[in-house]
Amino acid sequence: MLEPTHLQISGERFTATYRLAMKHESDARSLAKHICAEQTVEFPVELIPEDDISRHIVGRIESLQRESDAHIAVISYAVECVGGALPQLLNVLFGNCSLIPGVRLINISLPPSMLDSWRGPRFGVTGIRRVTQVSERPLTMTALKPMGQSVERLAIMASDFAASGIDFIKDDHGLASQPFCNFKERVQECSKSVQRANQDHGTSARYCPSLNVPADEINAAARFARDQGVGGLLVLPGLYGFDTMRSLADDNDLDLPIISHPSFLGSHSNAGDGGIDPGVLFGTFMRLAGADIVVFPNYGGRFSVLPNVCQSIIDCLRAPMGAIAKAMPAPAGGMKVERLPEMIGFYGSDVSLLIGGELHRGDRREIAERMTAAAKGVLKSRL
Amino acid sequence: MLEPTHLQISGERFTATYRLAMKHESDARSLAKHICAEQTVEFPVELIPEDDISRHIVGRIESLQRESDAHIAVISYAVECVGGALPQLLNVLFGNCSLIPGVRLINISLPPSMLDSWRGPRFGVTGIRRVTQVSERPLTMTALKPMGQSVERLAIMASDFAASGIDFIKDDHGLASQPFCNFKERVQECSKSVQRANQDHGTSARYCPSLNVPADEINAAARFARDQGVGGLLVLPGLYGFDTMRSLADDNDLDLPIISHPSFLGSHSNAGDGGIDPGVLFGTFMRLAGADIVVFPNYGGRFSVLPNVCQSIIDCLRAPMGAIAKAMPAPAGGMKVERLPEMIGFYGSDVSLLIGGELHRGDRREIAERMTAAAKGVLKSRL
Repeated sequence: MLEPTHLQISGERFTATYRLAMKHESDARSLAKHICAEQTVEFPVELIPEDDISRHIVGRIESLQRESDAHIAVISYAVECVGGALPQLLNVLFGNCSLIPGVRLINISLPPSMLDSWRGPRFGVTGIRRVTQVSERPLTMTALKPMGQSVERLAIMASDFAASGIDFIKDDHGLASQPFCNFKERVQECSKSVQRANQDHGTSARYCPSLNVPADEINAAARFARDQGVGGLLVLPGLYGFDTMRSLADDNDLDLPIISHPSFLGSHSNAGDGGIDPGVLFGTFMRLAGADIVVFPNYGGRFSVLPNVCQSIIDCLRAPMGAIAKAMPAPAGGMKVERLPEMIGFYGSDVSLLIGGELHRGDRREIAERMTAAAKGVLKSRL
Repeated sequence: MLEPTHLQISGERFTATYRLAMKHESDARSLAKHICAEQTVEFPVELIPEDDISRHIVGRIESLQRESDAHIAVISYAVECVGGALPQLLNVLFGNCSLIPGVRLINISLPPSMLDSWRGPRFGVTGIRRVTQVSERPLTMTALKPMGQSVERLAIMASDFAASGIDFIKDDHGLASQPFCNFKERVQECSKSVQRANQDHGTSARYCPSLNVPADEINAAARFARDQGVGGLLVLPGLYGFDTMRSLADDNDLDLPIISHPSFLGSHSNAGDGGIDPGVLFGTFMRLAGADIVVFPNYGGRFSVLPNVCQSIIDCLRAPMGAIAKAMPAPAGGMKVERLPEMIGFYGSDVSLLIGGELHRGDRREIAERMTAAAKGVLKSRL
């Protein structure tokens, strides 16, 4: 038996809301109790004496309510469990829970003292508008692709897009460092090419390379990219961890906008009655981890996503969250210029319109110019 | 339209096997074609000329077969798509696929040239037996817990367990750096305490701290732990990325066994008809990423896992994989001493038996001694 423990505890707690795929209240309550222990002490609770661990550290069921064939459990945890570190926040919210079938994280709520632990997006919507000097209209983005193109061709492509007036030209997230397209050469040439096109055409495109490199090279790669004058960084938190993105966003020596890509994260949002709701995953977590622009699958594209899912993501990207800035949505996945007015209608103007492959269905510069025109409201007013 | 591309391609390919939740062959084929493009060029394939990109870079359907109400698609990719980096391997295998409902990664096969890109487990089963000097019996492991215990108490607990003859004493994965239990103090005190107990009792326990720290501090934390004389490192690839673990395993300056923990990874394996099969996730990926000992939920414990799932994990941990060493399974989650003979029967002796909270159901040192006795075959021979 453990001796009783006395702890200095502030009493401040944060909450996680889980949907438990349990019809009967007794089953749901027993699962909720399991979660309270699993996410904190991982210890048989009956073996913990009446002390500050059982009172404060073990999670606490704040409410449990039936919702159709499931139950909604709100569980609170002491802020001290997290110690101000993002990996441990995710760990307490959903670490071992992810291994329990039928537990879905659908909402989180953090007190102000905890939100102060993280800077969030360095730029956010306001900062992105400041650095791009685009005050009102939607922003535009495209991706350099397809994989297999040489550095030289990608640099020419980047130049064409910069000339068209597109705001962000990112690497396709799958451009890593392949034998036919080395990371350093690509970043060097594409960055140079975009800067030259900006000068020649009076545009101000920002080239954003994909930091798809070995994990122990990501910091050096980001610094190399900065030294080449890139305008932002594409980061893949599903492959490198949310906190790796947070550390890049926090890095004063980089001071660059962060675009997050959803690669490898879909198992969480698509996990049926398990996993994490897309709003929490692509909204709240991305902001906590410092993404300024968040790429996610749009409805009506290559991924089977419903409009209400996209709505929940933008709600979370824009919800009040202490001093943590709002992030800009970049709905994507098979978008076309023709859909932009509708997308602007849905997302409003605080959006980064991302069209990739579809810009190549004809003269890419001409189609890209139609895209930038649409963003400037030309097509919108015509409809 | 793109100009045709000529590439230097070896012709070597690796394969991913996906289960597609599609009953009709035509639907399954169209989804498989979608995957071929989605995981590589992310580009409308009809816009790619007849060239080396369409011939080699776009994924290729090697076979498509009906299996009950689904289809099994084997898709191959050129090794050049990966460029020898683990994040990009995971990205090609399942990055955007994770966002498509009804696509489950169930197997992968890499050619020898590709396996040479990664070292895999630095120790593996053989190396773990060499450094622990335990030649035949199962190894034993426990975790320091519950969260909320002071450094002083955890150090005493560690000492008791070391005296009992347990081989590995790891931090509970949720011991981060909390106000009541600072990372550096804990590592310092627990490591010292285990070393002292080893001297006093002629045992050789290895203390393995949890590297649950901010991502940009993980390398320094690992070096600090090494300097305190720890016997291994607990890493959480679900929170830090598989390649972060790979970089720690590869680090010659650390030269320490890596224990992987499944926190935050369950959404992949529990994702129903999406996600990644547990064998690939906790077996193949963990080995590629350098885990020497792999913690995963055992059947019949706190997590609803079936024996066949555990079997598939150990099959993948032990399957031939070029020069990549076999890793040791550490089935866990509510295990008890009474179950050890059965577990040894199921897993064989190349297993790391992990019991945490249940060692505290009475005198912990006595129960831990029963555990080590069970591992030494005493209980086994009695049955």
